[in-house]
Amino acid sequence: MLGLGLIGGSIMRAAAAAGREVFGYNRSVEGAHGALAEGFAATTDVHETLTRAADTRALIVLAVPMPALPLMLAHVSELAPKCPLTDVTSVKSAVLDEVIAAGLQERFVGGHPMTGTESSGWSAGHAGLFTAAPWVVSVDDHVDPVVWSMVMNLALECGSVVVPAKSDEHDAAAAAISHLPHLLAEALAVTAAEVPLAFALAAGSFRDGTRVAGSAPDLVRAMCEGNCSHLLTALDRVMDLLGRARDSLDWDHSVAELVEAGHAARTRYDRFPRSDIFTVVIGAENWREELAAAGRAGGVIRSALPIRDTPR
Amino acid sequence: MLGLGLIGGSIMRAAAAAGREVFGYNRSVEGAHGALAEGFAATTDVHETLTRAADTRALIVLAVPMPALPLMLAHVSELAPKCPLTDVTSVKSAVLDEVIAAGLQERFVGGHPMTGTESSGWSAGHAGLFTAAPWVVSVDDHVDPVVWSMVMNLALECGSVVVPAKSDEHDAAAAAISHLPHLLAEALAVTAAEVPLAFALAAGSFRDGTRVAGSAPDLVRAMCEGNCSHLLTALDRVMDLLGRARDSLDWDHSVAELVEAGHAARTRYDRFPRSDIFTVVIGAENWREELAAAGRAGGVIRSALPIRDTPR
Repeated sequence: MLGLGLIGGSIMRAAAAAGREVFGYNRSVEGAHGALAEGFAATTDVHETLTRAADTRALIVLAVPMPALPLMLAHVSELAPKCPLTDVTSVKSAVLDEVIAAGLQERFVGGHPMTGTESSGWSAGHAGLFTAAPWVVSVDDHVDPVVWSMVMNLALECGSVVVPAKSDEHDAAAAAISHLPHLLAEALAVTAAEVPLAFALAAGSFRDGTRVAGSAPDLVRAMCEGNCSHLLTALDRVMDLLGRARDSLDWDHSVAELVEAGHAARTRYDRFPRSDIFTVVIGAENWREELAAAGRAGGVIRSALPIRDTPR
Repeated sequence: MLGLGLIGGSIMRAAAAAGREVFGYNRSVEGAHGALAEGFAATTDVHETLTRAADTRALIVLAVPMPALPLMLAHVSELAPKCPLTDVTSVKSAVLDEVIAAGLQERFVGGHPMTGTESSGWSAGHAGLFTAAPWVVSVDDHVDPVVWSMVMNLALECGSVVVPAKSDEHDAAAAAISHLPHLLAEALAVTAAEVPLAFALAAGSFRDGTRVAGSAPDLVRAMCEGNCSHLLTALDRVMDLLGRARDSLDWDHSVAELVEAGHAARTRYDRFPRSDIFTVVIGAENWREELAAAGRAGGVIRSALPIRDTPR
């Protein structure tokens, strides 16, 4: 584990609870000491961690914030270039670009557990954070079946369900369901803060609508700014919808169109069908495309898929 | 109780649990039968209910949707014009206008319990819905101390804390903390529904950010459209914030300004000081202005304030 914050620290706990040998690096002393105090192998020495990873051919999990990624990849490239590699960052295309720039794409399979809280740091984590949460494992054209299988198994052992997806599709979806909600929450909090009496009356709609505005600004910025083009598309769409509702309210005293469309969309989400993916063999012909299509249709992997036993 | 939906039905349960005699009318047979089946006095005959109210000088609670209000006020005006009167509608100025149009303002004190769920109807209600929730009781210039005290006592007996506020200030705040969040939730749901893979990956930020889009469209429309001018102000402000964040993201790859302001605003909300109002005497000189100022500053009434014992 490179990085023992909310996500990295929770994976460390969940993977250990599943019986894995796990060891980690954290930049800050607090995080490393927190892990050590709970009996985990943790250090602030990245060389020590990566040397041990190289010696044991460990699966390396990049769990550092996006801005720290280039430096961390340089360390991996220098000290453990043959290790299988994954990440847990909330943007996938930008990470893949960095991995390619570091020459590490051959053993890299991107990942993104779709979970979290508005808190951060080692102390905010817990082994149950991934229970039943979707964990995206990327099926880009380059991915290796053996590494893919390793990442899938890690996610499953942490209690997640695996959603296979292409990095670019992940990023478009993440803009709409994660990064955009963060910006809406921030804008709602600012708007209400300017109105006398608003905080005095704030109840469920406001609390839920601004919950993620409590997230650390640096983390929100990193994920939004790392997914710039997809987020711009989502922002333009939401502003278009709000602008039309605004004009309709002003001219016709009606918000019917937006409210009915929104309710219908939310109802579709509540009924979104989940199905199990179990027929795909990792490494078989077209396995990446089949997994991407199945993920798009709501399919999840709940128990490990078989891997083709002869190398292709 | 006129109307036995989520709010009216919950007040019926909570008031009965507090030892009050309570009886109600509901337009639909389902709601009235639901209440009857649980042992409450309920009917679909508004004349019967209002005649009984007039005979017993009962406090009448208007708990019908905004569009049904004029007709209901006409019934009250005809059958029970001397009864004290309150309401639970999420807009206050528009309701007051209707009450004045019906000539009923003398014994009217507006109210708004700031609670609810995305469900509606008798079956969605429960006696605990108001526990610790702010219940706005209006302190407009016309309000009568005796009726005000009655409405305050009802709210307190239902388990709420009372926030005194002027109708217009309530409406400006409600636009920012309730009506705007509803429109943002609708717009977010529509935006995500258009992106392949979005529902497959949706997690906490999306679920929380769209929860209120599950509310019945008619109710959302009624409250948004009934608070048109304040909601336009809030919408314009949120679109201004989002537009600036959009341009900053496009030109400078940064959302720093919005994210930092949003986090600061949400942090201020988390630390918003609540204080108890206990020095104001209802009916004493300037009591309405004193209560409005105290409410604006975060003050709430947790136990009944005294009422001036000589009529003014």
